[in-house]
Amino acid sequence: MQKQVDILVIGGSAAGIVAATTARAFYPDKEVMIVRKEQDAVVPCGIPYIYGTLKGVDQDIIPTGHITEAGVELMIDEVKSIDKESKTATTSSGTVISWDKLVIATGSVPKVPEWLPGTGLENVFTIPKDSHYLEQVQHALEKSKKVVIIGGGFIGVEIADELSKKGFDITLVELLPHLLQMAFDEELSVRAEEILADEGVKLRLGCKVERIEGDGAVSAVRLEGGEVLEADLVVLSTGYLPNTTLAADAGIKLNELDAIRVDEYMRTEDKDIFAVGDCAEKFSFFTRIVKGLMLASTACSEARIAGMNLYKLSRLRTFGGTMSIFSTAIGGTTFAAAGVTEQVAIERGFDIVSAFAQGIDKHPKSLPNVHSQWVKLIVNRESGLVLGGSVMGGASAGELINVIGVIIENKMTIHEVLTLQFGTHPLLTGPPTGYPLLKAAENVARKLRA
Amino acid sequence: MQKQVDILVIGGSAAGIVAATTARAFYPDKEVMIVRKEQDAVVPCGIPYIYGTLKGVDQDIIPTGHITEAGVELMIDEVKSIDKESKTATTSSGTVISWDKLVIATGSVPKVPEWLPGTGLENVFTIPKDSHYLEQVQHALEKSKKVVIIGGGFIGVEIADELSKKGFDITLVELLPHLLQMAFDEELSVRAEEILADEGVKLRLGCKVERIEGDGAVSAVRLEGGEVLEADLVVLSTGYLPNTTLAADAGIKLNELDAIRVDEYMRTEDKDIFAVGDCAEKFSFFTRIVKGLMLASTACSEARIAGMNLYKLSRLRTFGGTMSIFSTAIGGTTFAAAGVTEQVAIERGFDIVSAFAQGIDKHPKSLPNVHSQWVKLIVNRESGLVLGGSVMGGASAGELINVIGVIIENKMTIHEVLTLQFGTHPLLTGPPTGYPLLKAAENVARKLRA
Repeated sequence: MQKQVDILVIGGSAAGIVAATTARAFYPDKEVMIVRKEQDAVVPCGIPYIYGTLKGVDQDIIPTGHITEAGVELMIDEVKSIDKESKTATTSSGTVISWDKLVIATGSVPKVPEWLPGTGLENVFTIPKDSHYLEQVQHALEKSKKVVIIGGGFIGVEIADELSKKGFDITLVELLPHLLQMAFDEELSVRAEEILADEGVKLRLGCKVERIEGDGAVSAVRLEGGEVLEADLVVLSTGYLPNTTLAADAGIKLNELDAIRVDEYMRTEDKDIFAVGDCAEKFSFFTRIVKGLMLASTACSEARIAGMNLYKLSRLRTFGGTMSIFSTAIGGTTFAAAGVTEQVAIERGFDIVSAFAQGIDKHPKSLPNVHSQWVKLIVNRESGLVLGGSVMGGASAGELINVIGVIIENKMTIHEVLTLQFGTHPLLTGPPTGYPLLKAAENVARKLRA
Repeated sequence: MQKQVDILVIGGSAAGIVAATTARAFYPDKEVMIVRKEQDAVVPCGIPYIYGTLKGVDQDIIPTGHITEAGVELMIDEVKSIDKESKTATTSSGTVISWDKLVIATGSVPKVPEWLPGTGLENVFTIPKDSHYLEQVQHALEKSKKVVIIGGGFIGVEIADELSKKGFDITLVELLPHLLQMAFDEELSVRAEEILADEGVKLRLGCKVERIEGDGAVSAVRLEGGEVLEADLVVLSTGYLPNTTLAADAGIKLNELDAIRVDEYMRTEDKDIFAVGDCAEKFSFFTRIVKGLMLASTACSEARIAGMNLYKLSRLRTFGGTMSIFSTAIGGTTFAAAGVTEQVAIERGFDIVSAFAQGIDKHPKSLPNVHSQWVKLIVNRESGLVLGGSVMGGASAGELINVIGVIIENKMTIHEVLTLQFGTHPLLTGPPTGYPLLKAAENVARKLRA
């Protein structure tokens, strides 16, 4: 079968959908098609909640309504090859699709540690963005009691938090000294560890797994040093790799992390081929150092840039580098960070000053459901520019971190932050006299003056 | 008695406290004293919640701990006169306080409509920031059933919402066609009206009160057109006036709204006398037009500016005009706005484009406690600059409006907004593919292209 479209998007998760709908919005006379393998695409960051708060995989599906309402055609098939010269893509069903502009949004796949014996045993699962596979995990969990989670990043921590509510016996193993250490300052990691420990999750921090053991099915996880953790089921949450085999096979250039190389407008070397999301190269907003970061929010921002610039470049806005805004909730407390962590700032060579403030997220304190709110800011000493910030608090911290993100993206100094005007309300925010973000800014400014 | 301090702050509500503590933070070698009338100052924006969610006035008190911990002296007394020449203030107890720098933070007092007969009747109350008076209101409410609230601004609406939960029979009378019309676009006002009406609050919009009636105590409120509303108690929430008699008596210049005239650094004409908060002049961030706005958050921002600039001016940050960020919650829905409303933008002469987007505040929609989230942006057509924004949503909208505030204060264009990087998380925010703020920006950008 032959098919012809103006804009072809390969991959229909967050980045692919946003690239396609943005393209339709900015080039309404163009035909846009998404090709993806599955009818139903899971919400990637919602996956941990399938196993606790939600009732199953079918509750964690990205609605297709937005796609079709935007006038984007959705084809369920798998692209097996791309030909840059003839500007075509061929699917597993044999359909040849001609395109004028191509957006690659093939995402990422779980990274399985090759050196680790036993990953092929039954009931050892990764967490791919694949609804059928995730359903198998669910069925296996129903028959399990003892779960060992290997990898204390967001997926590992969130699954531990969700499963602990369901009464599983959980051990979480992390190679680094702290959970979430790549994303968060130590204060946040330590608090997250306390919360999980209080929930009964057994933590093994700074521990390397030696092997996964079992006869057919998994029965245990052996750590270096000899500890053996009994396990009915193992979750391998040890990161993701860009899914770029298709692109590489087509001769599209990858970077040293196997991500598709892109320019400021998310274009590959071929100006008609764009790449966005987990499969596309990331570089730091602060240093332009290439990063391995994968975030749906970053992916969607890249997808908007690509969608706007498909047919004509515009200086209205380029990408400017990845900011890294992370947020999660563990045991009802929100943890969030934007920009660089202290450790990364120092490693990169920044002379920094940081300070925090502790307050409340509603006011006065006598109101119901008041949560403590802790805000920290990291500032470059010489320029006064805000490089990073963190929040621990109630649910509103999920948007408060975006306040900090906008501050960083605008390259504001700490003194500009100090006198920003923030709206406050008893039921919604900290008090105007002690808004923790402003108090943290004040504490940084005092240190800078000292 | 004689007393000598470096920095004297008159008034110890939000602005006074922040001016004093900021002064201590930036000039740690200076002695700072606050003089205020009451030992316990109420949280101004918390007042409506005294009559519902909170258990009484004593639960709505600004903690004094922050004041004394910051090294600020707190004197309970009332300043009766200021002498600019001798740089002294005299209190009602006869103490004469010498100061080097003076900050006037005397706040505001309720505006009682002079033309309205019956405001002196028993059980007709205003809402001043006075804990003893507010306790009297509480006692009177305990003996009341039928309450008429005159004035549909924030105080009137919030008191109506709180009292309705307690089973009072409430009528809310507003002269303008809509509630909260000075702060919000019509979409928000209409939704707020629906919520209050669903709660059983009787609304009389576009209605003028002719007189308050009663024999000794209030018994009814008569509207123009003849309707008579029975009333055991009347709340007059018809706005506030700057409390500037003390300043005027001292020969300090006021503006046409009776607010103390100040420069970019919150200084009066006398460079050793500053004014901040409700008693100080406000001008618009967008037009520099003088405004009558009174907000605790604005007051605190002014107080920080004053505190930083007491002894030496710094271009690190001046005030730049009042942004107007409003937020409230009515019946569990958050309403918030930043910058100009559509109506004000048009009145001022801006050619604007606006658009909204409707989404959710957590994702996927199948999660518990998901609230709809509606975001609107108002943009100047020629420059593309964001002039205003509104949100209706769950509790996180209280911080989301501050994201929009920072966008406006940074003079960002809609295209810059469109590609901002926002952190998202299932339990905390809308989805990365359909973050309502970005979708609203996209809808504005589409209109601009069309």
